Amino acid sequence: MNAPLPVAIEPAPDPHLVDAVESSGGTVVTLDRARALVWHGPPHDFPNLPDAVEWVALPFAGIEAYYTSGAIDDRRLWTNASGFYARGCAEHALALLLAGLRQINTSLMLGWNTDVIPPAVRSLHDATVAIIGAGGIGRELAPRLAACGATVLAVNRSGTPIDGADRTVPSTEIEDVLAAADHVVLAAPSTAQTHHLINDRTLALLKPHSWIVNVARGELIDQAALARALRAGTIAGAALDVTDPEPPSDDDPLWALPNVIITPHIANPTPGLTREMAPFLAENVRRFIAGDPLISVVDPARGY
Amino acid sequence: MNAPLPVAIEPAPDPHLVDAVESSGGTVVTLDRARALVWHGPPHDFPNLPDAVEWVALPFAGIEAYYTSGAIDDRRLWTNASGFYARGCAEHALALLLAGLRQINTSLMLGWNTDVIPPAVRSLHDATVAIIGAGGIGRELAPRLAACGATVLAVNRSGTPIDGADRTVPSTEIEDVLAAADHVVLAAPSTAQTHHLINDRTLALLKPHSWIVNVARGELIDQAALARALRAGTIAGAALDVTDPEPPSDDDPLWALPNVIITPHIANPTPGLTREMAPFLAENVRRFIAGDPLISVVDPARGY
Repeated sequence: MNAPLPVAIEPAPDPHLVDAVESSGGTVVTLDRARALVWHGPPHDFPNLPDAVEWVALPFAGIEAYYTSGAIDDRRLWTNASGFYARGCAEHALALLLAGLRQINTSLMLGWNTDVIPPAVRSLHDATVAIIGAGGIGRELAPRLAACGATVLAVNRSGTPIDGADRTVPSTEIEDVLAAADHVVLAAPSTAQTHHLINDRTLALLKPHSWIVNVARGELIDQAALARALRAGTIAGAALDVTDPEPPSDDDPLWALPNVIITPHIANPTPGLTREMAPFLAENVRRFIAGDPLISVVDPARGY
Repeated sequence: MNAPLPVAIEPAPDPHLVDAVESSGGTVVTLDRARALVWHGPPHDFPNLPDAVEWVALPFAGIEAYYTSGAIDDRRLWTNASGFYARGCAEHALALLLAGLRQINTSLMLGWNTDVIPPAVRSLHDATVAIIGAGGIGRELAPRLAACGATVLAVNRSGTPIDGADRTVPSTEIEDVLAAADHVVLAAPSTAQTHHLINDRTLALLKPHSWIVNVARGELIDQAALARALRAGTIAGAALDVTDPEPPSDDDPLWALPNVIITPHIANPTPGLTREMAPFLAENVRRFIAGDPLISVVDPARGY
């Protein structure tokens, strides 16, 4: 039997991650003795890496802050948690979309109002929902939407078909999809290409009954343009688990709009992150020891 | 070809219902010339029925008010709309349950709170959901819950298995199901047997993380007992589309509880009722003319 793989878990030895490492052929050591680092702290505390560290596992799906801070280099392998939390994100996206369509926000605000609320109720049944950036979250979300009777249009970079979607198209065709959709769910990574993907021009493609849901990154939406569309009623509402910045400033107009639902970045609530990540980490430790390709390797050229 | 079936549509000739009757072999006439009546008004305006009326179609799933008022007699056939709106009800139940689990109510109340909200987020994945009164709504709800990764336990009078449920049991076993469930959705008709089905004793079978959803009738819940359980935290929350009375009185303690979501009886919003009913009415007109058994015939002995 080989010696166990020495893995550092920083900034503190989370029990779910320790179990994952120890159950899969690893042993937990300090960073100066490690060949791999599992980092579950904030980007600004990220340590200087000894040369001996060959692999860094980050437990976040969106790791743009690690690029910005210069932490990510090309001297070793980096993995993120892309897809690990897809299930929770998909459920949260469905919850936000249904809350908007079924007028749960206005019911909580207005109480038992039978004039405004009933005519505004909409259904997912026979609605067309676009999933923008359909990867792991899209694969989990599409069958949930289909079970509610919705038609699912998926958009991703390559147009690689997503199981459960009625149609998947490449991102070059995004405007056609927005024009065809009743509602839009954003699930794309934050990159230069997706920055302010939702703006005055793309918002104009949507419909007065359209809801936009964002469980990806706030930077995908030009929030000033979104507030204009919501105020003008050219779309029905926005349900946002992510904003730009987070939290929105106290005087952000989104807070005051009746057709906005904001949840505080809880599609993957932090208290459950390491537990959700543990089985994927265990699998990657096994693969690293066996010399197999890891899950969710970061491509520095794409930025995710 | 036979003469068209003379059907009265009262209190006013709704266009969806007129289309349904005329497309299926009927013709719309005044009540004094009718062999069938489609009534879509309130119970207190229900007309005296000429003897020639052989069939009355009521466009509501819950018709207890028509029993109370004495409108329903045994001198003709009565149909209700049981099952016609099941899809909308199931979607609303899913929306309410997810809104509770994903903390959308507290997010709308507390804003960007990262202390209280994230630890309280729960998931349908791997949760066990009991559907109490699993008929048409249960058949629509079970696959939606299954797509979210939940285990579904269904309870109905006879224990007749519901497609999509992992297990269906007769109502005699309801307490076992409540004890096994994480969350409960009420979808049963309002009868003497279901009155205050949720009370101090049955609430005690649930768990501190349990949500109760009611899309059936307010009378199924002893609201004072529910308020006690919610205040004590022996259950996590209640999401109610129906209450007793409707609306709840201004001083009802439910309004002030942070773990309660109330929507104003919009699982089937009135503006869409006749549109949703139309295809079922057309089918029943066809069956009546052909002498076939109708859909959703009311059984006066059961009261629904």
